[in-house]
Amino acid sequence: MTKTTESAIRNGVDLPNLFATINVVRDEPQLAQFRFRATNRWVVGTHSRTTIETFSGAGGEHTHANDFAYDADHPAVLVGADQGPTPVEFLLHALGACLTAGVANIAAARRVTLTSVEARIEGDIDLQGILGLADTVRNGYQQVRVNFRIEGDASSETLREIVQQSRARSAVYDVLRNGVDVSVDVPE
Amino acid sequence: MTKTTESAIRNGVDLPNLFATINVVRDEPQLAQFRFRATNRWVVGTHSRTTIETFSGAGGEHTHANDFAYDADHPAVLVGADQGPTPVEFLLHALGACLTAGVANIAAARRVTLTSVEARIEGDIDLQGILGLADTVRNGYQQVRVNFRIEGDASSETLREIVQQSRARSAVYDVLRNGVDVSVDVPE
Repeated sequence: MTKTTESAIRNGVDLPNLFATINVVRDEPQLAQFRFRATNRWVVGTHSRTTIETFSGAGGEHTHANDFAYDADHPAVLVGADQGPTPVEFLLHALGACLTAGVANIAAARRVTLTSVEARIEGDIDLQGILGLADTVRNGYQQVRVNFRIEGDASSETLREIVQQSRARSAVYDVLRNGVDVSVDVPE
Repeated sequence: MTKTTESAIRNGVDLPNLFATINVVRDEPQLAQFRFRATNRWVVGTHSRTTIETFSGAGGEHTHANDFAYDADHPAVLVGADQGPTPVEFLLHALGACLTAGVANIAAARRVTLTSVEARIEGDIDLQGILGLADTVRNGYQQVRVNFRIEGDASSETLREIVQQSRARSAVYDVLRNGVDVSVDVPE
């Protein structure tokens, strides 16, 4: 294995392919327009199941390699059957996964080989909001915290900078931190 | 089966238990303080896996009835191995599941029996943001749309109002629409 090969695939990230992708999008920005889709179907009570659908982007329509479907529910203490995590727990998953993917990509680009990355994510929520008991209490999380433990062949400072750069380029962090326009409709 | 029993459990929602829970929280608001937790661990490349952890609330610590773990990844077109949906697709799942759970609860409270609820959720994202190609393009979704099809023993107008009331009390909708304080740290 040559040094070139070693640095081409680092942390499982195919860097030449990643940089080639970035260059292609730089030349044809319309390829960067993606649309992701999912369908949620009610099962019973607070239990529902979501199927991840095809997505469009890079000038085409794409199907995931596997079928992905996820249950969500409320736990017993919130009068559900606990057939899946609560929807708000999936927000924590989305946030952690987005930041971690960025950490791996950015570390590879900076020639840092990672040995482990673990993020603990927690969110505080006052359910007086969704229960309609206090108009001054918001429905959603009041605060979300992510704490990373990251190990690799770089200084603590460099590893810390990789995490912060991932935060600066994270799609999920941006949505959670800054909000997004969301429409909810019931077409005729 | 008496009429009372019929209306006690509607749409799989245990209404007496739900109202009792609301009344308990009304009397002791500190019971409404919940904290949800998850741990995300890097696997390789952009692939990571999240374990849903215990959560605290209602004055205690709670363990889900089952172990819940979820993979996330980037698809091949985004230089990943497609070992799971992208993190941003889990946002669509969280949103749909939260709104649907609310629909079932609110319909039950309004004595509406549902026969089917389906939500199609989609989000538009311009990847020039996360790829660092355009500073004016945000990292996250630019817009998210949810379209419900809902059927039950009520008028279209009533069913539509149930969906809108669910939106008005949805934790995930609130977080996505209005944003939340998120900290990302690498403790020493």
